[in-house]
Amino acid sequence: MAAPDTRIRIVDQGLDLISRSGLAGVTLGGLAAEVGMSKSGLFAHFKSKDAVQIALLDRMAEVANRVVVAPAMAAPAGLARLRALVGNWIGWSDRAGLSGGCPVAAALFELDDLDGAVRAKVELMEGNWRGLLRGLVGEAVGRGEFRADVDADQFVFELCGVYLTHHASHRFLRDPQADGRARIAFEALIVRAQPTPQEWATAPDQTPGETP
Amino acid sequence: MAAPDTRIRIVDQGLDLISRSGLAGVTLGGLAAEVGMSKSGLFAHFKSKDAVQIALLDRMAEVANRVVVAPAMAAPAGLARLRALVGNWIGWSDRAGLSGGCPVAAALFELDDLDGAVRAKVELMEGNWRGLLRGLVGEAVGRGEFRADVDADQFVFELCGVYLTHHASHRFLRDPQADGRARIAFEALIVRAQPTPQEWATAPDQTPGETP
Repeated sequence: MAAPDTRIRIVDQGLDLISRSGLAGVTLGGLAAEVGMSKSGLFAHFKSKDAVQIALLDRMAEVANRVVVAPAMAAPAGLARLRALVGNWIGWSDRAGLSGGCPVAAALFELDDLDGAVRAKVELMEGNWRGLLRGLVGEAVGRGEFRADVDADQFVFELCGVYLTHHASHRFLRDPQADGRARIAFEALIVRAQPTPQEWATAPDQTPGETP
Repeated sequence: MAAPDTRIRIVDQGLDLISRSGLAGVTLGGLAAEVGMSKSGLFAHFKSKDAVQIALLDRMAEVANRVVVAPAMAAPAGLARLRALVGNWIGWSDRAGLSGGCPVAAALFELDDLDGAVRAKVELMEGNWRGLLRGLVGEAVGRGEFRADVDADQFVFELCGVYLTHHASHRFLRDPQADGRARIAFEALIVRAQPTPQEWATAPDQTPGETP
C-alpha cells in the first residue's frame, strides 16, 4: 500500500482532534503537535486556522456521506429512507471511528456568537443537512405515509432536538439508555406525523373504519 | 451605591464572556483582558483556570435560579409549574442580559470528551437541573395531569432536546421562528403524556364517553 499523502494524513488526524476538542482545539500549533510536524511544515499545506478548520469540516462531510447518507439511499424513498438515514445519523461519529463527538453539533454551540468563514461553512453544512431531512419528510408526505398538513420544518426542528439530546446524553452524561431513548422519541415524532385512524375513517374516499 | 466588589465584577463580566465564547474562551489571560486587569491581579482572586470557570458556573446557577426557577415556583404545583419553568428556561440567557448563549448547553458539547473538575461541575449542575424537571413531571403524574405510566426520564430527555434544538435554531441559525417551534414541540410532548380521551373513557370508574 502506498504511504498516505501528507495532506490526507493531516486532515484525518485533524478530524479526530476536532471531534474531541471542538474547533477551539484546532489551532495550527495544536494540529501540528497532534500530527507530529512543525508549525511551518503544516503551514505548507494550510495557510490559516480558518483554512485548516474548513478542510476538516469538508473531510467530515465526506466521512458522514459515506457512513450516514450513502447507505440510507439504498432504502426505498419516503419514510423507510428517513428511518434509515436517522438510524445511521444518531451516534454516527462512533461508527465512523472518531474518538469524539459530532463536530457540527459542537460547532452549533461553539460558534453561535461568533462570525466569520468557519461559521459560514457550518451554516452551509447544517442548511444542506436540514434540506436533505426536509426532502425526505416531503417524500413521506407525497407517498401518504405522513399527513399532507405536516410541517416539514417543524419536523426537522424536533428531529434535530432528538439528535442533540442523544448527543448530550450519550457523550456528556454517558447514559447507556441514550440510544433507546432517541429511538422512542423519533418513533413518537413519526406517529404524530402519520395519518390518524380517525382521519382515515373520515377521509371522503373511505368508508368509516375501513382499513386503508 | 457602593462600588461593586472586584470579585463580583470579574465574575459578572466573566459570565458574559463564557456565554459568548464558551469555556475555551475563559482562560486567565482572556478573562484578565476582558475585565481590564493584569493576569497577576486576576490571580489574586482565582488561583487557576478551573477555579475561575467553576466560579463562573456557580454565578450562572445563581442568575438562572433568579431568572428561571424562582418565578416558576410561584405557579401551582404540577403541570402549571412545569409550563412556567420551561417558559422561563427556553431563551433564558437573552432575558438574563447575557450577550451569548447558555453556558451549560455549550459545555455539554464542549466538554463531552474531556475530563476534570469543570466537567464534573457541569455534570452536577445538569444532574440537578434534570432532577428538578423530573420532579415536576412526577408532580404532574401525581396530580393525574400526566398518565401514571409516563417515563419521567424519557420526558426530560425529550424536553432537553427541545431546549437544545431551540438554542441551535435561535442562536446559530438565527431563525425567528425558533420560539414558536419550541412551544409547539413542548405542547406535543405534554399531549403525549396526558391521559388520552380513550383512557378516560375506559377507566374503570368512568362510564364510557363520560367527560371527566
